[in-house]
Amino acid sequence: MTEIEIGRSKRAINGFAFDDIAIVPTRRTRDPRDVSTSWSIDAFQFEMPVIAAPADSAMSPATAIELGKLGGLGVLDLEGLWTRYEDPTQQLAEIAAAKDEDATAVLQRVYSKPVQAELIEARLGEIRAAGVTVAGALSPQRTAEFADVVLRSGVDMFVIRGNTVSAEHVSQQSEPLNLKEFIYKLDVPVIVGGAATYTAALHLMRTGAAGVLVGFGGGAASATRKVLGIHAPMATAVADVAAARRDYMDESGGRYVHVIADGGLGTSGDMVKAISCGADAVMLGTVLARASQAPGQGWHWGPEAVNESLPRGRRVFVGTHAPLEQVLNGPSNSADGTVNIMGALRRSMATTGYSDVKEFQRVDVVVNNYQ
Amino acid sequence: MTEIEIGRSKRAINGFAFDDIAIVPTRRTRDPRDVSTSWSIDAFQFEMPVIAAPADSAMSPATAIELGKLGGLGVLDLEGLWTRYEDPTQQLAEIAAAKDEDATAVLQRVYSKPVQAELIEARLGEIRAAGVTVAGALSPQRTAEFADVVLRSGVDMFVIRGNTVSAEHVSQQSEPLNLKEFIYKLDVPVIVGGAATYTAALHLMRTGAAGVLVGFGGGAASATRKVLGIHAPMATAVADVAAARRDYMDESGGRYVHVIADGGLGTSGDMVKAISCGADAVMLGTVLARASQAPGQGWHWGPEAVNESLPRGRRVFVGTHAPLEQVLNGPSNSADGTVNIMGALRRSMATTGYSDVKEFQRVDVVVNNYQ
Amino acid sequence: MTEIEIGRSKRAINGFAFDDIAIVPTRRTRDPRDVSTSWSIDAFQFEMPVIAAPADSAMSPATAIELGKLGGLGVLDLEGLWTRYEDPTQQLAEIAAAKDEDATAVLQRVYSKPVQAELIEARLGEIRAAGVTVAGALSPQRTAEFADVVLRSGVDMFVIRGNTVSAEHVSQQSEPLNLKEFIYKLDVPVIVGGAATYTAALHLMRTGAAGVLVGFGGGAASATRKVLGIHAPMATAVADVAAARRDYMDESGGRYVHVIADGGLGTSGDMVKAISCGADAVMLGTVLARASQAPGQGWHWGPEAVNESLPRGRRVFVGTHAPLEQVLNGPSNSADGTVNIMGALRRSMATTGYSDVKEFQRVDVVVNNYQ
Amino acid sequence: MTEIEIGRSKRAINGFAFDDIAIVPTRRTRDPRDVSTSWSIDAFQFEMPVIAAPADSAMSPATAIELGKLGGLGVLDLEGLWTRYEDPTQQLAEIAAAKDEDATAVLQRVYSKPVQAELIEARLGEIRAAGVTVAGALSPQRTAEFADVVLRSGVDMFVIRGNTVSAEHVSQQSEPLNLKEFIYKLDVPVIVGGAATYTAALHLMRTGAAGVLVGFGGGAASATRKVLGIHAPMATAVADVAAARRDYMDESGGRYVHVIADGGLGTSGDMVKAISCGADAVMLGTVLARASQAPGQGWHWGPEAVNESLPRGRRVFVGTHAPLEQVLNGPSNSADGTVNIMGALRRSMATTGYSDVKEFQRVDVVVNNYQ
Repeated sequence: MTEIEIGRSKRAINGFAFDDIAIVPTRRTRDPRDVSTSWSIDAFQFEMPVIAAPADSAMSPATAIELGKLGGLGVLDLEGLWTRYEDPTQQLAEIAAAKDEDATAVLQRVYSKPVQAELIEARLGEIRAAGVTVAGALSPQRTAEFADVVLRSGVDMFVIRGNTVSAEHVSQQSEPLNLKEFIYKLDVPVIVGGAATYTAALHLMRTGAAGVLVGFGGGAASATRKVLGIHAPMATAVADVAAARRDYMDESGGRYVHVIADGGLGTSGDMVKAISCGADAVMLGTVLARASQAPGQGWHWGPEAVNESLPRGRRVFVGTHAPLEQVLNGPSNSADGTVNIMGALRRSMATTGYSDVKEFQRVDVVVNNYQ
Repeated sequence: MTEIEIGRSKRAINGFAFDDIAIVPTRRTRDPRDVSTSWSIDAFQFEMPVIAAPADSAMSPATAIELGKLGGLGVLDLEGLWTRYEDPTQQLAEIAAAKDEDATAVLQRVYSKPVQAELIEARLGEIRAAGVTVAGALSPQRTAEFADVVLRSGVDMFVIRGNTVSAEHVSQQSEPLNLKEFIYKLDVPVIVGGAATYTAALHLMRTGAAGVLVGFGGGAASATRKVLGIHAPMATAVADVAAARRDYMDESGGRYVHVIADGGLGTSGDMVKAISCGADAVMLGTVLARASQAPGQGWHWGPEAVNESLPRGRRVFVGTHAPLEQVLNGPSNSADGTVNIMGALRRSMATTGYSDVKEFQRVDVVVNNYQ
Repeated sequence: MTEIEIGRSKRAINGFAFDDIAIVPTRRTRDPRDVSTSWSIDAFQFEMPVIAAPADSAMSPATAIELGKLGGLGVLDLEGLWTRYEDPTQQLAEIAAAKDEDATAVLQRVYSKPVQAELIEARLGEIRAAGVTVAGALSPQRTAEFADVVLRSGVDMFVIRGNTVSAEHVSQQSEPLNLKEFIYKLDVPVIVGGAATYTAALHLMRTGAAGVLVGFGGGAASATRKVLGIHAPMATAVADVAAARRDYMDESGGRYVHVIADGGLGTSGDMVKAISCGADAVMLGTVLARASQAPGQGWHWGPEAVNESLPRGRRVFVGTHAPLEQVLNGPSNSADGTVNIMGALRRSMATTGYSDVKEFQRVDVVVNNYQ
Repeated sequence: MTEIEIGRSKRAINGFAFDDIAIVPTRRTRDPRDVSTSWSIDAFQFEMPVIAAPADSAMSPATAIELGKLGGLGVLDLEGLWTRYEDPTQQLAEIAAAKDEDATAVLQRVYSKPVQAELIEARLGEIRAAGVTVAGALSPQRTAEFADVVLRSGVDMFVIRGNTVSAEHVSQQSEPLNLKEFIYKLDVPVIVGGAATYTAALHLMRTGAAGVLVGFGGGAASATRKVLGIHAPMATAVADVAAARRDYMDESGGRYVHVIADGGLGTSGDMVKAISCGADAVMLGTVLARASQAPGQGWHWGPEAVNESLPRGRRVFVGTHAPLEQVLNGPSNSADGTVNIMGALRRSMATTGYSDVKEFQRVDVVVNNYQ
């Protein structure tokens, strides 16, 4: 890694955000109809490399089911409103109606109701009944507490997601979750993160995870930079974690751990760039929160926004652009990268001559800081 | 090329936009009256190195004729409104009157009417009758379909223009256009693009093209970056393609293929910088759309804005600044680089001591990111 | 140091502001409850590495006392309103009520009243009576004049603070303060600055100071860049001075001089970054001026704003966010880095796996210019 | 010079504007009262290194006289309103009253009246009668035409100023001014420019000029970048020309040609930075146009704004801040770098430990792109 000297006692690596880069066409082009966007992880196959971010603004049981039917993977936040309330309709309305200056306080209040195990079971059952792949997310702090009920409910895939999840969590207060043991005992594949560096990701891969989320907890709605001073320029983070995938595949004798970009993905262009840096799939929050079915009703927020003493995210306005199917597959009548994101991916791959997502990770990239 | 490490598994080249650079005067200055801006390609001679972008906002048969009389090269979009409608006056008015949020939908509707071969013939005939150089543009997708009627109509020059055009288009759906064979069979010189890299351009040059368009499909009105993640910093793209021109001249034993910058050219200063990076000529959209005769009536859009399922451009307001002749040759009474662009080029060349456009490609350049 | 060529006769070092960097999580995480934020300097122990900037907008005797009770170090500006007026209530109200265009003139007028030695004694006595650590600040210009009364008043710690304070002040007009002699004779530890470079700080360390302030005189409210052309990118300045601390420890056989970041610290994220660059503690103005008890009533200004002929700072609006205790220790109901700054520091250290402030100086850092 | 690759066929140098850099204090500080800002060129001594830009917005005969009395050098534009009109009061009022969109046209009209030789004589006589140093400026295009009357009028110093002035102007239309012969024949010292590079400046120095203006024709009011694509980042330009001064001193056996920054100097901080890059003096337009006596009445424009066919500058609003004496010497009651610019220079030099302007050219500089 090229290092930069901040001052005489400190060096840093140079990081790039998706906005700092762009992909560049090369000498070959391809018919968009010949392009495949399919993605498979473990035994599961998807028509698009799209996982929903477990955010209440984007995912209800209903939208998780619809995304599944459209060929992506819906993920319900199992510590969200749907497992705290029998019917969160009123709470969602309150959040949508809150003034900007009150929004965080409203979120804190609404999310102070405890998570109920039986609601976890009910929600996952609802999704399972629809016949799509069932996935739910817990934070690492509460995974031990709720893992049993989640598994009993019959998930196909398990997501452990926090701002930063490490393979080595140290605590003198309570026995921390031993990720490696936990994953080993599970029957279902686990996707875990966020991680933002080569080393952190490599250690997560060694726990047996099927996929690693690359990020630091939310994109547009995140405030970890102002609050915690933490920020991971996403293009660099994805490319670093992709290197860990390669090296881990070597050290493990061939195990391929999926790299899933999670954060900074507001447009189809961002999604394209994430793959160009090595992502196998993308976890989308903002993009899906723009669907007319999204529970957020034009607003987006992540789990980090509801912390009772140190919120590290905000409710942000993303608007309602089109039904979910149209957001994913078009047609679009705007040119802002919010609708027909799969059409955009297909077009981008075709324009640069690639025919599948894995190959497209090799596309040429240029650095240019533009506004 | 200097490479930058995005992350451990990805490298990128560093790219510069016209805004990132400026030209710097050197030790000699020259009388502006001694400067020549003439340009010739194949057998055609022009008083200015200016080709119109085939965009309906800028080019009608009438403005193509006027540009030709003023010493530039008009190019009609043969898949635009003038070949879809007998009289597109009403459609142009609708586009100009549309609200911002409806503009893309209006474009999509208006452009859904099929192109009519007989209108291609009529429009080109109209231009030919005026005695100027006749040029029309098709997309690579429809070149095979309409090439015959275009040639029959008697064009002097043929433009094949898309966001990205490659010498090697792969399709399992239909027999793609074989550029090399196609150009070989034609009697008229072909200008083809966009291409944004050395390699892509070199391959286009090998097809026998007389000129290569450098770009990625539009400038101010383009949204390929947000939608597709594609962006080509233009200063770098032009300088790379100019290197391909040099190397191809060597490998071909002296064939000189013209490098035509196409995109990011909103002001006379941008045009000057394009030439400073190696362009032989510039293809102007925004600049010509500001003429009072321009069909766009103060609005500009490109062909990429009308796509029915994935528009990658927008209608943007550029204003109406002056009659076409004044836009090109002045006098100007504003200092924003929109009027008297040839006077500006001449002054720029004089200030830096150069007397013709080809020489001016060698002018000194400085990098400075200013706002 | 990596040098950059400005032009053929001038080289410069490359500097980074806190906004240019971010910290990045690594492979280990930690329980926030296991993290210690304690800090000790000389014989004094604090629960948080926070020193108040001696600015009238943030520090009155009352807020200095409260900060002390909450575990930080309050510092009163001994050339501020509290030592010029028996009761500055009316003056503070005037400043708060002034229109933007009049604010500097109001400050100049209000601060033209002379400092009164007996008020220095009274204010420090007030703080001492409350049982917290007593600290007051003087400018280097007036340290000789007032040092005796300050010491007689019984301070625990002495702060000498100016835009730029050097160990070698040259004057033909008056005998300058000999810092080394002065500090040698004092019984109490001295914190002195600002210094912004390795060399300047090293010389200050050699005077016997217990701590060095890193900065150039104020952050958000400063205008030294526009007025004087002086600016010290803070991340680089802190990392450079931290190198001086290390080298001075070696040359002095083990004396550890504390590095205290002073400037550019508007959010908890900035504070975190200062420590990541090597700061032992932070001097906060803006952050504390946001407390509801702050005398500034939502406004912040520093001593550099009141200069009668060349003001180099402004009154800026920072708002009133929460009571002081909540600003420091939460809970927060906004995600902008203004409230619960110690919770944010603790969380940041936990997320990156560190358990004390000194260790946290080694955290990984990334460069990325984001907005 | 470090070169950057724009693309495979083009390299560029990296340039820095004043905004990209700042000066940094070092280990010594000094009493501002011990600092000298005096400057001498040829036989002339000035209390401040300040030359007025020959712009009608800033300089009338009256303000030139006042600036001279205050210790700077006033320069009248001898092709400006004062030599076109017996009394330009009405024209100045018209310019000040024009709407933004009409301003350039008003300037063009007002300046279309021919320059009258007898008015040149009268204006310069007026200044001479006041007993201050007399200086007037002509463009290189008209120097031959008016030089005789100027000299006959008895100037002390002669300024030849254009956007770009070279030692080798080539013209097939008319015999160009031979600068070397012209300067050789003159009795008075000549200041000539702008030049923006080492080579251009070196050649100007060889003509026998006493001083070289560094710039490209105006600062805030300039539009050469948008119109001509020309821009010279000023910090780099000044440092390059300072290197030419050093090398020319060597080659000439000791002739010291003064380097005068001309452009990008809107605040006292900019002036400080210009000197830090090697300037001996600064030519100020915007700063002086803010004086209450300035003829521009709060507006500023340069000679490049009045060109009849290709204006390359604009009328910009700079406001009226204070009487000229206060703009120069204070006191100031704002912190924006517009008033008390000599106090700011003195303070800046003192803060960094320098006692005269020539020494201050060696001050340390840091690169940081801040907003």
